[in-house]
Amino acid sequence: MRTATTRASIASGLLALAGGAAAQSSLTLFGVVDTTIAHGSGSIASRTQLASSGNQTSRIGLRGVEDLGGGLSAGFWLEGALTTDDGQGSASNSNNQPSGTGPAVAGRQGLAFGRRSTISLIAPWGEIRAGRDYVAHYRNRLEVDPFQNVGVGTIQPQVGSLGGTTSTRVSNFVGYYLPPDVGGIFGFAQYYLGENASDSAGKDDGSGASVRLGYAAGPWNVSVATGRTRFARTATTGDIQSSNLGLQYRVGPANLLFGYFVDKVDSATPVTGRGASLGTTIAVGAGEIKAALSNYRSDAGTRPETKKLSLGYVHNLSKRTAVYTTYARLRNSGGATTALNGSTTGPDRSSSGWDLGVRHNF
Amino acid sequence: MRTATTRASIASGLLALAGGAAAQSSLTLFGVVDTTIAHGSGSIASRTQLASSGNQTSRIGLRGVEDLGGGLSAGFWLEGALTTDDGQGSASNSNNQPSGTGPAVAGRQGLAFGRRSTISLIAPWGEIRAGRDYVAHYRNRLEVDPFQNVGVGTIQPQVGSLGGTTSTRVSNFVGYYLPPDVGGIFGFAQYYLGENASDSAGKDDGSGASVRLGYAAGPWNVSVATGRTRFARTATTGDIQSSNLGLQYRVGPANLLFGYFVDKVDSATPVTGRGASLGTTIAVGAGEIKAALSNYRSDAGTRPETKKLSLGYVHNLSKRTAVYTTYARLRNSGGATTALNGSTTGPDRSSSGWDLGVRHNF
Amino acid sequence: MRTATTRASIASGLLALAGGAAAQSSLTLFGVVDTTIAHGSGSIASRTQLASSGNQTSRIGLRGVEDLGGGLSAGFWLEGALTTDDGQGSASNSNNQPSGTGPAVAGRQGLAFGRRSTISLIAPWGEIRAGRDYVAHYRNRLEVDPFQNVGVGTIQPQVGSLGGTTSTRVSNFVGYYLPPDVGGIFGFAQYYLGENASDSAGKDDGSGASVRLGYAAGPWNVSVATGRTRFARTATTGDIQSSNLGLQYRVGPANLLFGYFVDKVDSATPVTGRGASLGTTIAVGAGEIKAALSNYRSDAGTRPETKKLSLGYVHNLSKRTAVYTTYARLRNSGGATTALNGSTTGPDRSSSGWDLGVRHNF
Repeated sequence: MRTATTRASIASGLLALAGGAAAQSSLTLFGVVDTTIAHGSGSIASRTQLASSGNQTSRIGLRGVEDLGGGLSAGFWLEGALTTDDGQGSASNSNNQPSGTGPAVAGRQGLAFGRRSTISLIAPWGEIRAGRDYVAHYRNRLEVDPFQNVGVGTIQPQVGSLGGTTSTRVSNFVGYYLPPDVGGIFGFAQYYLGENASDSAGKDDGSGASVRLGYAAGPWNVSVATGRTRFARTATTGDIQSSNLGLQYRVGPANLLFGYFVDKVDSATPVTGRGASLGTTIAVGAGEIKAALSNYRSDAGTRPETKKLSLGYVHNLSKRTAVYTTYARLRNSGGATTALNGSTTGPDRSSSGWDLGVRHNF
Repeated sequence: MRTATTRASIASGLLALAGGAAAQSSLTLFGVVDTTIAHGSGSIASRTQLASSGNQTSRIGLRGVEDLGGGLSAGFWLEGALTTDDGQGSASNSNNQPSGTGPAVAGRQGLAFGRRSTISLIAPWGEIRAGRDYVAHYRNRLEVDPFQNVGVGTIQPQVGSLGGTTSTRVSNFVGYYLPPDVGGIFGFAQYYLGENASDSAGKDDGSGASVRLGYAAGPWNVSVATGRTRFARTATTGDIQSSNLGLQYRVGPANLLFGYFVDKVDSATPVTGRGASLGTTIAVGAGEIKAALSNYRSDAGTRPETKKLSLGYVHNLSKRTAVYTTYARLRNSGGATTALNGSTTGPDRSSSGWDLGVRHNF
Repeated sequence: MRTATTRASIASGLLALAGGAAAQSSLTLFGVVDTTIAHGSGSIASRTQLASSGNQTSRIGLRGVEDLGGGLSAGFWLEGALTTDDGQGSASNSNNQPSGTGPAVAGRQGLAFGRRSTISLIAPWGEIRAGRDYVAHYRNRLEVDPFQNVGVGTIQPQVGSLGGTTSTRVSNFVGYYLPPDVGGIFGFAQYYLGENASDSAGKDDGSGASVRLGYAAGPWNVSVATGRTRFARTATTGDIQSSNLGLQYRVGPANLLFGYFVDKVDSATPVTGRGASLGTTIAVGAGEIKAALSNYRSDAGTRPETKKLSLGYVHNLSKRTAVYTTYARLRNSGGATTALNGSTTGPDRSSSGWDLGVRHNF
């Protein structure tokens, strides 16, 4: 594909494109390259890295939609994460169980479409979607996090969640998604499979269902979600139920965000994790200020808890390119040892970190 | 790359393309996203999965052709399989030997162009092609299979073949392909390398040659192929010779397909596998009916044999998008334990399975 | 993406592109497919392979630049190597240390952007670039090699270099690059991170800096570079300092190339490697002749040394497509066992090899 203004022209391809016959059909190649200096400091060790994804997850994707006529359309979406500091891809999970993400092989992870790999049939009454994508009970967590689960600032309920393998995404799901306009109501429901043989010990492991329902009216947006993934009960695991509530309120240039999160692990001795976050994003000129206070605590053993403060500023150089910086600090108690940006901290000690990076969308 | 009608506009790239100077030159990005619910049931265990590739193999590819003038052109083709239920790529084989496909690492297979990776010089007298692609003796098997070696319905000689590592594709080949119009004659010949050092014990392992020749006239199409891959003789392996015959006859909306297949493994005690298939594809309105009866049997030990019935229907929603369903049932004898869609069945027991999916080409 | 002249039309995508609003912005998909027959012969074993990258490294890439206004622009570059003989990608290195490139898994390496993965802010006063790319002290080695570190002909200081993990590329760097026109002066400086925890034994391992500075005037081009990577001292490793000098002189259709290279490994007993190369590229009609004499020797133990002669011819069928052949022969002394194209040769024995291939750019 030859562009008119290639900088360093190794390429010299010729490309002739047939324009789309139907205006509603499209094919889009897209991506994000986001690279950041990331420093973390803890009571035991600090670390400085050139890292990927401080503001948005670096990625490459291909998506398309085809108008089938009669109000029906077909779509697909393939999207995989990149680590732009070293050029690697990022793993997927094949079966919604810990065994479905193999051991890391340093330097050798190729591009996989682990962020999203879906096919859809879209009708006026909604969308049937299948493949791998966000699980419904993750969406509230994502939408009330001013840092969108990326970089050092991401709220603690994202990091500490006891939600297990299906905490963020699921493979092997079929879902129903409400259409965009149903009087302010939005949501979707998914059923997903662990794909085990019917005679295996953990035959239901990794299977589950999740549903999200919300309502938006004027400046308000409220949503609830719950999902349950099956795992055979042992001392350390069992069925996991993750539920949460998200609340958003827009006032002038600010968006106020509140979330409450509960994760119950039905192990031999059941464990419950609870978290909350209060955050905001505020548009200021060409930039955006972000802030959040959050915590997550478990009722297991010594009741470890981590409280976190996050502050960030994103300065847009254009609609596609931004420079940003984020600072975060956390305090552990109950024996927790959570640390930021690759640092290591002792039980009940604090940790801090910062990102300073550039993000470019294409 | 920004499209005029992007649905969920994360991307905002700008793209300026120079039209191809030569009309015969092109660069094409293409792919298939095919996701299916796949159920298999056997006497020991059943399994339900969201799977990829029930009608066509999910894939992504890039291919181009450049007009060099004087009747000569250059081309390349890079195509890799995807598993759209979890977003992974699919492995290649580097040396045409079992050692050339490393151990599977769950969730971590990145995109590789293992389906096809070729460069070509194309002249009026034919094409020289090199790299990785279908082996000649696989083409008859593919073309007489109404299910095209995809999904639960694929004919048994595809599944049971004793053809070994080079049963479907070979890496490291150089081939000569006849031009499209030679009075109905078609075919190609390949020589491929196992790439072992000249002082290694199995220095010829994975090297071989394969040739296919056919003739099409009116409604008839007949072709024969044979290929031989070298492997040092042991109790379980040795040179493998795969030969087959394909016959096609078009009558009205139907295409009748017949194949006969022989695979000889020259192990210490030689083993021969033989299979046959009789199938059809019938166009009906916007859809297509597919059916096949097939078997494959080995003369080793208890002479295991599997007989299979396959029925399918594909309903085209557009030229690019289809919904489909396939049903298959097989019967084992001679101790065979072949089972469908991830199920497990006991010796001489039957197994059945179905697919229900959506396929979208882009 | 549908082209007007697709040869084998599996694809039928529709694509509507919005032209770039700003002329200076672009997105480019590019690549190289280069496949060669590669034969090597040595005193112990010879080998014949279908290999990738005899003239240029096979690759696929995506790069873009966005005009931010005010003389500022943003850019990204993602580029990964392919092995077109089998369709695999190629590994990256995550931490500039041997542990950063995991064990090879045959047939399973997916596409990774290990050749280059960068984001840039470009201003009139220069470019800030971060990610993974060539290390500064590699550039002189690359530019004075008529064979560009590809194929059997590449000069011996490329192959034998004691420069270690950061000999060619580094991950996790931030660099400053001089703008294109500063009165003939060119160069860049990088600082890169091994990203270890501050309490680890080898906390500085893989971190370092590298700088290159050159001057071009009329037919002359001279440049020097030096880089130092930190590694904790052991019997076999320690800080590695690589320095070199490149000299180019253009006369008529010929480009004369000279390079001198020194690599110092500060192990318990320090080791120094020294090499030199004298080469040329000569344009002849539609083709190019390449030749080089080079050597590399280490002062360790028996002082192994390898001397190499390389001869090549590239015939351009178009601006994008070429056929080529290369012959090389080397002589070992001091116990060296270097061998060409996968062959094996005994101590102080010679080895020879040739490539015969096709290269296509898109």
